[in-house]
Amino acid sequence: MDLVIGIDIGGTKTKVGLVNKEGHCVEHTYFRTREYPDLDDYLDKTVAVIDELKSKFPEDLNILGCGIGAPNASSRNGTIVNASNLVWKGTVPILAKLYERLPIPTKIMNDASAAAVGEMMFGNAKGMTDFIVITLGTGFGSGIVANGKLVDGYDGFAGELGHIDMTIGDGRVTGQRVKGGLEAYVSATGLKRTILYMMSMYMDESRFRDIAYNDLHGEEITQAAAEGDSIALKAFDYTADILAMAMANFTAFTQPEAFILMGGLVNSGKWIFDPLHKYFEEYLLDVYKGKVKILRSGLPPRTTAICGAAALIWEEHKTQQPSEA
Amino acid sequence: MDLVIGIDIGGTKTKVGLVNKEGHCVEHTYFRTREYPDLDDYLDKTVAVIDELKSKFPEDLNILGCGIGAPNASSRNGTIVNASNLVWKGTVPILAKLYERLPIPTKIMNDASAAAVGEMMFGNAKGMTDFIVITLGTGFGSGIVANGKLVDGYDGFAGELGHIDMTIGDGRVTGQRVKGGLEAYVSATGLKRTILYMMSMYMDESRFRDIAYNDLHGEEITQAAAEGDSIALKAFDYTADILAMAMANFTAFTQPEAFILMGGLVNSGKWIFDPLHKYFEEYLLDVYKGKVKILRSGLPPRTTAICGAAALIWEEHKTQQPSEA
Repeated sequence: MDLVIGIDIGGTKTKVGLVNKEGHCVEHTYFRTREYPDLDDYLDKTVAVIDELKSKFPEDLNILGCGIGAPNASSRNGTIVNASNLVWKGTVPILAKLYERLPIPTKIMNDASAAAVGEMMFGNAKGMTDFIVITLGTGFGSGIVANGKLVDGYDGFAGELGHIDMTIGDGRVTGQRVKGGLEAYVSATGLKRTILYMMSMYMDESRFRDIAYNDLHGEEITQAAAEGDSIALKAFDYTADILAMAMANFTAFTQPEAFILMGGLVNSGKWIFDPLHKYFEEYLLDVYKGKVKILRSGLPPRTTAICGAAALIWEEHKTQQPSEA
Repeated sequence: MDLVIGIDIGGTKTKVGLVNKEGHCVEHTYFRTREYPDLDDYLDKTVAVIDELKSKFPEDLNILGCGIGAPNASSRNGTIVNASNLVWKGTVPILAKLYERLPIPTKIMNDASAAAVGEMMFGNAKGMTDFIVITLGTGFGSGIVANGKLVDGYDGFAGELGHIDMTIGDGRVTGQRVKGGLEAYVSATGLKRTILYMMSMYMDESRFRDIAYNDLHGEEITQAAAEGDSIALKAFDYTADILAMAMANFTAFTQPEAFILMGGLVNSGKWIFDPLHKYFEEYLLDVYKGKVKILRSGLPPRTTAICGAAALIWEEHKTQQPSEA
């Protein structure tokens, strides 16, 4: 059986899985990234986990390669550079060091860009040539496809839309110290910050007046909105408004056929999507109105990032063997 | 001799020329667009002008095709849609109507996108795969190249960066009614508006207190800056600051190797470029600092737009015959 290793390196968890040519993750597991502050230890652990997964397919296993999604990854250089959510600082030559342990074809890419390749191969962007993936997790990630190809940039750092300066209202500072950066507003973290902001702006009763910032979770904000908590409702409306403005601006850039949204914030469902649709159509230039879809990810829910990473390798095989596509 | 017709449709002038395979415009002329409010009259005039140019090459002339650059042009549909600076309103099927009169291979594109193709073939973007052209004339135009291909978008309207909402200071309204749109600040028109704004903000002496808005021209603002007029200097600094912020944001999108600037505002030289370089490096995310060039157009100064338009046809011929490239 032909399989590809998919690895998603996140600030909290590293997810590892084996993905078949239909984009299904047949085996997967995870471990805690922060427990391996030394890169060599981390990669030893990664390879051990891969061996464990492979051992479940004792016969007839053919590993075609390994795809990795990670924040601030440069596909051109095979490095991770100054990723604020990761323990390793500076420029990390992760691809070269992994290859010493696992000498198979390996590619690395910004996690949201990997997700974009995954959507194109296995998800909701099949057949599309122009679309943008937005990941709304701890941060704000983006992967841009134009003319059917991922937009990579001069040295592999294109698609850092979370750090675009929106110069909104109070000019929040992101983890990358960008004042007014989009990620400070539109992400799971941004939503939590907006709960605080709304309680500072209004005196409405809210369950969140009894909850500390560090105890606040996205699911609870969704639940509060469903129960009519006006601070939660205001926070979703504010978040959707800013995301809509950003997406309207992005449309003027590459005119995508669709935006594909994924990540924790997307699980808030209609509380984010209803105001998002409304504001988005309002902000679009006339020439774009009614032409840009807002979709959710079409990749499997629990293994989205693993499938995206694995798509980096599957993409090459499908291109080489079009009869199998 | 193989030649391509290049046409640049502007709000004031329509420029027409014949361009050879080295990107030199061997003959050119212009007429006033506004004198032909009826599209049929306009196209009759255009064809008459082309015939006149062709008559200068009585022998051995082979016209390969006709490239057109125009505001709000859709390359996919061959139309111009709601161009605020043009006399024809609504959706104008210009390519089909021109073909009735001139049945040769014809392509149309947003003027800044055509300029980007021109820079790639004949100008300062030779060999580059990722760059952005910005035209700073009456309006703000942009043409984006990623992975060596022009970013066209889902139906040919990508690269409308002049209408991105910058949500700056006082939220000026553009000709397309975008509040805070970039073009309202960064363009020849935007600079004139900023002269008024600076005189409203400060009581500095200035020659511009004796000049009406409609009598104000870019060359005079440049001259005033050279003479130390503090309103002119403040206006250039403000314009460069906003352009720098926009370009830093655009960098996070496609990570271009270079921005190539052209159009009237560029003639202000160091008054715009000196503050632009300073602010741009300041605003770039760390990962991009020192990697993004700011260049001027490498196309011939008086026939830039004609050469860009003609490049749309030359591009196809060079692709088909790589030995000639």
